Amino acid sequence: MNTSLDCIPCLLRQALDTARMYSDSAAVHEQILRDVLLWCGNMDMSKPAPVMGQRIYRRLRELTGVQDPYLSAKVRQNQLALRLLPELRAELARAKDPFELAVKFAIAGNIIDMGAAGDVSLPGVRKALAQAIAEPLSGAVDSFRRAAQKAETVLYLTDNAGEIVFDTLLIELLGPAKVTAAVRGAPAINDAVLEDAQMAGLADMVKVIDNGSDAPGTVLSETSEQFNAAFKTAGMVIAKGQGNYETLSDSPRLVYFLFKAKCPIIAKRAGVTIGSQVLQQSNVNITAVMEKA
Amino acid sequence: MNTSLDCIPCLLRQALDTARMYSDSAAVHEQILRDVLLWCGNMDMSKPAPVMGQRIYRRLRELTGVQDPYLSAKVRQNQLALRLLPELRAELARAKDPFELAVKFAIAGNIIDMGAAGDVSLPGVRKALAQAIAEPLSGAVDSFRRAAQKAETVLYLTDNAGEIVFDTLLIELLGPAKVTAAVRGAPAINDAVLEDAQMAGLADMVKVIDNGSDAPGTVLSETSEQFNAAFKTAGMVIAKGQGNYETLSDSPRLVYFLFKAKCPIIAKRAGVTIGSQVLQQSNVNITAVMEKA
Repeated sequence: MNTSLDCIPCLLRQALDTARMYSDSAAVHEQILRDVLLWCGNMDMSKPAPVMGQRIYRRLRELTGVQDPYLSAKVRQNQLALRLLPELRAELARAKDPFELAVKFAIAGNIIDMGAAGDVSLPGVRKALAQAIAEPLSGAVDSFRRAAQKAETVLYLTDNAGEIVFDTLLIELLGPAKVTAAVRGAPAINDAVLEDAQMAGLADMVKVIDNGSDAPGTVLSETSEQFNAAFKTAGMVIAKGQGNYETLSDSPRLVYFLFKAKCPIIAKRAGVTIGSQVLQQSNVNITAVMEKA
Repeated sequence: MNTSLDCIPCLLRQALDTARMYSDSAAVHEQILRDVLLWCGNMDMSKPAPVMGQRIYRRLRELTGVQDPYLSAKVRQNQLALRLLPELRAELARAKDPFELAVKFAIAGNIIDMGAAGDVSLPGVRKALAQAIAEPLSGAVDSFRRAAQKAETVLYLTDNAGEIVFDTLLIELLGPAKVTAAVRGAPAINDAVLEDAQMAGLADMVKVIDNGSDAPGTVLSETSEQFNAAFKTAGMVIAKGQGNYETLSDSPRLVYFLFKAKCPIIAKRAGVTIGSQVLQQSNVNITAVMEKA
């Protein structure tokens, strides 16, 4: 998915907000803003927006020496989600269709996003979970269910800290033995890294790999050989979050995207309204993929 | 008032929205966005934000050949305000303090702003008028009233189309004989120009001059000699709107500002909350001004 002109003011806004997480220095805030202005002025709009996000966080690390200003926030988000887990298990136990509800909880967890207009507060997360219980899930539900049943191996691309706790509920139903989970290779906003997978209990359940990249999405030209092999060979790929949607929606293989639509550009691209729970498959030629498989 | 770092994403947002008023061409939208990104990357932040606004509108006129894409909107705004005028006169006739209410109506009219987060709809304008009737006016009310009584000449800097209709109610009470009203010298968003002053009835009531500049504010280094002489010699200067506040708040002479705070940066600078009715005087050394007079 390319970068829309409307993404640019938002990227600037995010650069400034993020700079304030990295440093209290007004000089740093101004420097990163001026850098991003000049980069965006000459930007290749055919690249997805997370590529610019990646450049911003790299530059902030370089300017400030700070590696992960979101660390304590991520710990809080994991703890918040872990506290909610027993309630969610109880809901799943009495659900008519536990698989569908687990998908919706995994999508609801995507609200815990410090990059887009997410909400990392307990009321915000509870609201998303209530929506998950109340609202039917539209989109590629049946196709997703069939693919999950059929696939012998599943690569599960996680997104945010906290959210990955909710992912464990879906992964239990997918069958942990056949799932590999991937996290980011380095800190990017509150995206989950290996430590978060450990804290969330995900690392005790499935094999977890890092994707070798510090992009807040999945940029296949930058991810590791190990990751790319897993991405290519997995029977099914599930990708969480807007960043993975932006970077993989034009991917050459079939990918199932699960996310909360938090930005108007992405909501429009996905054909949904802001706040929607999205389960979509990529627009790849599925027949061709099936024939190849 | 200098440009805040937080103004930059907003300037980009406005540039894009404005470009879509000037042209349907995606190439034009991208060109102006890239231009503004590069300009802002090298911007002198000590200059007020409307200076960048001015540069944006100039470039859009150059790129598109379109002189005033807000013309029909301005006509609608003048008509909307003229239709409300009899109601407002009736309110003033039964008010305990008609002068204060006229000040509040003039401030309420400042909601009709297509640059900042204004509201040009009838419900939006009615809401601002209801707030004017219901909420007390804080700020430099007494000082403003005394200055208005004492001044032998008043220069009244208008802001938006539509809003200038409401200004006529205050100008009637100031005494039209001693008032000169100034409008922008060329179209800038929906800021009032001479044609709007004629349509609003302002030109039939007082002498109207244009300030000779196309900035959406008052940049004294660019305004005409005639305007600058009036600005220097007037017994009292009243300036409407955020753009005039941003460009004149550090002016060497005493200026009374009347506006609705529609942007968080300006609200913070003025020490008020968003949506407030503001009547403030500039931070000039008033004793020194009085001694000079």
